[in-house]
Amino acid sequence: MSPMDSAADGTATPDDARQRTPFDTPGERGSSSVVDQAAQDAREGDAGPADHGVQHMKWYGWGREGVGFDHRDKPRLRPFVIENVDVDLDTPGAPALDFDQLPVPESRAPQELLDALGRAVGRGHVHTGAMERVVHTYGKSLTDLVRLRAGDLPRTPDVVVYPADEDAVRAVVDATTAADAVLVPFGGGSSISGSLHPPRDEERPVVSLDLGRMNKVLEVDEHSRLARVQAGVLGPDLEDQLGARGWTMGHVPDSFTHSTLGGWVATRSSGAQSDKYGDISDMTRALRVVQPGRVVATRPVPSQATGPSVREMLIGSEGRLGVITEVWVQVHRLPEKREILAYFYPSFEAGVAAMRDIAASDAATTLTRVSDARETAFSFATRKKSKGVSKYVSRGLMAVLKRRGWDLDAVCLSFVGFEGGPDKVKADQAVVRDVVKRHGGIVVGKGPGQLYDQKKFDTPYIRDYLLDRGALADVSDTAAPWSQLLPLYTHVRREADKAFARVGVKGWIMCHLSHSYHGGACLYFTFAFRQTSDTPLVEYDVVKGAVQQAFVDAGGTLSHHHSVGVEHARWLAEDISPAGREMLGELFAAVDPDGRLNPGAVVQERSS
Amino acid sequence: MSPMDSAADGTATPDDARQRTPFDTPGERGSSSVVDQAAQDAREGDAGPADHGVQHMKWYGWGREGVGFDHRDKPRLRPFVIENVDVDLDTPGAPALDFDQLPVPESRAPQELLDALGRAVGRGHVHTGAMERVVHTYGKSLTDLVRLRAGDLPRTPDVVVYPADEDAVRAVVDATTAADAVLVPFGGGSSISGSLHPPRDEERPVVSLDLGRMNKVLEVDEHSRLARVQAGVLGPDLEDQLGARGWTMGHVPDSFTHSTLGGWVATRSSGAQSDKYGDISDMTRALRVVQPGRVVATRPVPSQATGPSVREMLIGSEGRLGVITEVWVQVHRLPEKREILAYFYPSFEAGVAAMRDIAASDAATTLTRVSDARETAFSFATRKKSKGVSKYVSRGLMAVLKRRGWDLDAVCLSFVGFEGGPDKVKADQAVVRDVVKRHGGIVVGKGPGQLYDQKKFDTPYIRDYLLDRGALADVSDTAAPWSQLLPLYTHVRREADKAFARVGVKGWIMCHLSHSYHGGACLYFTFAFRQTSDTPLVEYDVVKGAVQQAFVDAGGTLSHHHSVGVEHARWLAEDISPAGREMLGELFAAVDPDGRLNPGAVVQERSS
Repeated sequence: MSPMDSAADGTATPDDARQRTPFDTPGERGSSSVVDQAAQDAREGDAGPADHGVQHMKWYGWGREGVGFDHRDKPRLRPFVIENVDVDLDTPGAPALDFDQLPVPESRAPQELLDALGRAVGRGHVHTGAMERVVHTYGKSLTDLVRLRAGDLPRTPDVVVYPADEDAVRAVVDATTAADAVLVPFGGGSSISGSLHPPRDEERPVVSLDLGRMNKVLEVDEHSRLARVQAGVLGPDLEDQLGARGWTMGHVPDSFTHSTLGGWVATRSSGAQSDKYGDISDMTRALRVVQPGRVVATRPVPSQATGPSVREMLIGSEGRLGVITEVWVQVHRLPEKREILAYFYPSFEAGVAAMRDIAASDAATTLTRVSDARETAFSFATRKKSKGVSKYVSRGLMAVLKRRGWDLDAVCLSFVGFEGGPDKVKADQAVVRDVVKRHGGIVVGKGPGQLYDQKKFDTPYIRDYLLDRGALADVSDTAAPWSQLLPLYTHVRREADKAFARVGVKGWIMCHLSHSYHGGACLYFTFAFRQTSDTPLVEYDVVKGAVQQAFVDAGGTLSHHHSVGVEHARWLAEDISPAGREMLGELFAAVDPDGRLNPGAVVQERSS
Repeated sequence: MSPMDSAADGTATPDDARQRTPFDTPGERGSSSVVDQAAQDAREGDAGPADHGVQHMKWYGWGREGVGFDHRDKPRLRPFVIENVDVDLDTPGAPALDFDQLPVPESRAPQELLDALGRAVGRGHVHTGAMERVVHTYGKSLTDLVRLRAGDLPRTPDVVVYPADEDAVRAVVDATTAADAVLVPFGGGSSISGSLHPPRDEERPVVSLDLGRMNKVLEVDEHSRLARVQAGVLGPDLEDQLGARGWTMGHVPDSFTHSTLGGWVATRSSGAQSDKYGDISDMTRALRVVQPGRVVATRPVPSQATGPSVREMLIGSEGRLGVITEVWVQVHRLPEKREILAYFYPSFEAGVAAMRDIAASDAATTLTRVSDARETAFSFATRKKSKGVSKYVSRGLMAVLKRRGWDLDAVCLSFVGFEGGPDKVKADQAVVRDVVKRHGGIVVGKGPGQLYDQKKFDTPYIRDYLLDRGALADVSDTAAPWSQLLPLYTHVRREADKAFARVGVKGWIMCHLSHSYHGGACLYFTFAFRQTSDTPLVEYDVVKGAVQQAFVDAGGTLSHHHSVGVEHARWLAEDISPAGREMLGELFAAVDPDGRLNPGAVVQERSS
């Protein structure tokens, strides 16, 4: 099994077979190309019977086996990447390690702990096999993938357990405490901030608690529009269970297909439709969290004045305050009408200004997004060859813009989502049309919006495809007040270019505004450059570090929705102040004085 | 000076002279009947010159001297109160204590501490006089007022300081720490949960830090729609400063005229217009908090994934985590159009069901409120004698309802607020009209809404007026999911009636739904009964305790927006779980191991 095979094997691509609900579901689900993970576990010599039924992503990258990106039906992408990243997508990369050659350290779990865990979750749900432990060692950050592919596995969990319910989680936590072990909760494994791997120098046994079997919608309070859901459910499964009863949660982060409700809550996630549905902290009305010797349980009340919000203390806790087992979330009826319209702006400045005005207008939109000229060019480059009518529409539109004097290289693509009854959608679209016009933009129509909607979960596949071919690509997100967005944008672009120069590569950075709020917005940057040395993480750190530093230097936050983990911890004090970081450390130490709960995440830098 | 004089002296009433901005300002501001507090301090023998310029409420009740409620122009109120509370408003109450007869304990502040505080804030801003210390001993809960009027002053602050800026606050905190003293931050003094008074048995010196001089809007980031504001500003002053630049914060809690921004944040306040503007936790985008030896400062970013939210840990901290000095809040342009329409429903059930449907409809309303039949009857009883046209309109409407077969004793009055451009207001009103119709309600029109808008800050004056005349009246608020609201309502009514029976009085309890959310709403109860013994707080506790216990027993929260303080602390573990309460205690102890910061509030019951 080689990472290089995944994308070029001609099997399912992530943008096939879509659109079963308004909230896009992943192409690979139900596809015959999905590997049977349980069978695979058994093959790799796992001790117990792998009957957990939990499917994981590829050990070396994003998505399930047999699903990947392919550039060959997108004729403009290869020249685009050659020109901007200096990498030829037609050249196959060097072969990577086989799983069997990975230097997986032996499990250090003492038999007593394994026995206690067996009593807690059932013997068949305690795993010490190599594949299980490797899958649970890292998330899917670029750093994680590069390390994995390089066989850099200084420390893995010693044992992976799959509890079936909260009682089993409590028993696991108790067993961990009794054995002086460390506990890392694991949802979909989609973290890109390094919040899943055990510290390199952790001497105590490490238990990975996989919530994958806890995947049920337990209750829908239809009158209150609230659902009680187990934390381990994956996005598509959650939306299927809710959808069968006519409801949706409306949370669609880019990781949707492979991330869990508990993971969203633990990392303060935000989805593309946050303008309407809110961030996960808005949707989460209550939760249950298992801590050593106790369970914190809040009530699903809509608002309350009960001191500092315990609910908010647990949201974003990244495993440091225990294991999230259940969440009460807001749910909504499927909207009567749903449309995503595309718009063009003559500049990013104009587009951002329009998003700002929309946010305070009488229109209640679902999503507001505008790409800079570079990301717009990239979008165009990833389109399949246009045929027939759409080819002529496309050419005709460009001709119109040219006649209007637009610089076609500066065009910025924007999407705005609308939901509700037909009257509301119509009224909102009219309000937005006026704002767009005022900022010199034009309405493009529905087609590109449908395309965006179908492709919105593909980005991580493209990153892996590039990595397979020797290009390091990654994302960084921030949020800032409206007044600081454009200075921040300029600063980040400049600092990234300086970093590329330091590394000595032709680098590419692009951006879109992805979430709007009354007082500001999220800017989402994607960057890529060619790997030129045997120490890719050194170069990567120069670029990633420059981008992150530029965020906090320009008044932004270190992350809008990717969380802190370990990879962003070095900017925490600059973001929330040294005293703020101290407070978080004090809270973690007070609740978990022995540092057993995902030690290091959030507040502590570590080289790991 | 007697509490009994305040309302009957024929001076300004709280519902005079209104409507300078869309957000109602208090009648007493600028009125010549306001007492000069500085002069009064000097008269009471305060050491330094009382040049702080901070005006406080009456020491024995709500509002400024010379402003009070009067029933004599409301002909239906006296018979209403006789019938339902067994109290005759025409009978003057027994005279209360003169201030000079209050047994105010001596200040225990050591000279060293006074000197250090003088260096911190300037000698003229350090006060040890009796009036200053009494004003800062209690908030305005019914318990506070009964104690004060009974001369129950076991412990007062030993010294009151008025810092001018954050540096001075830091110096005060340092001086307090150095002197092994205790610090209680003080905003408007409007707390009704007992979060301001020092523990009865506190041996250490107690410093009250009054933020009244820190009352400036420091900065408006107009592009970001954010304002940086000092925490000590009172509601009307804040809205005046913002209004002069064309902005509003839109936060109008019932305490608006006498509460401060810092107090709102410290208690997780919510205002009547929360449907649009959000709770204070939504409006507060960042804050600065002085803790011993450090300042926590968050950034005004619209959203962020930086671990547990430090911002949310400080909101609602009631002084336990330090002194809030500055807040970044969201501000909004004054709306083009603003209307509050009144509706009638044939039952509370119908009204609540309509509010629920409005919350998930395409209408974006500003406020949603519906009173039960009892509160509706009370509203009618507090109206001035209607004359001319309005008299006939009123009679005509009732005749219509009668013809339609309504039980006039069951009529429930509702208000819904609308804001935005004329098209949006019109569209929203049409959506709401349909919902109202579906639930059997009818549109009444604009008149009562204007009246509501003008009177919305009067309730505490009525409470004091009743207390002056031997009736104990108070409020309790909760929030619950939509599905649990009516069972909770029924349970509270029943438990209150049982409590009245235990006390042996004719009691009155009424309710309105005051804030709507996607998943639930706030129910706001008001109760009153005649004082029949010399131990009014014992009887009060029977009733108040029954109401609060009914909240948590029926799935509600102990308070939607009145905070925990000391008076609600006994229900905290039932609300947020014992482990949740422990977590709060652990956080407080970690940040403030010596328990110097408003000790006892939130987590610790105490008899005080």
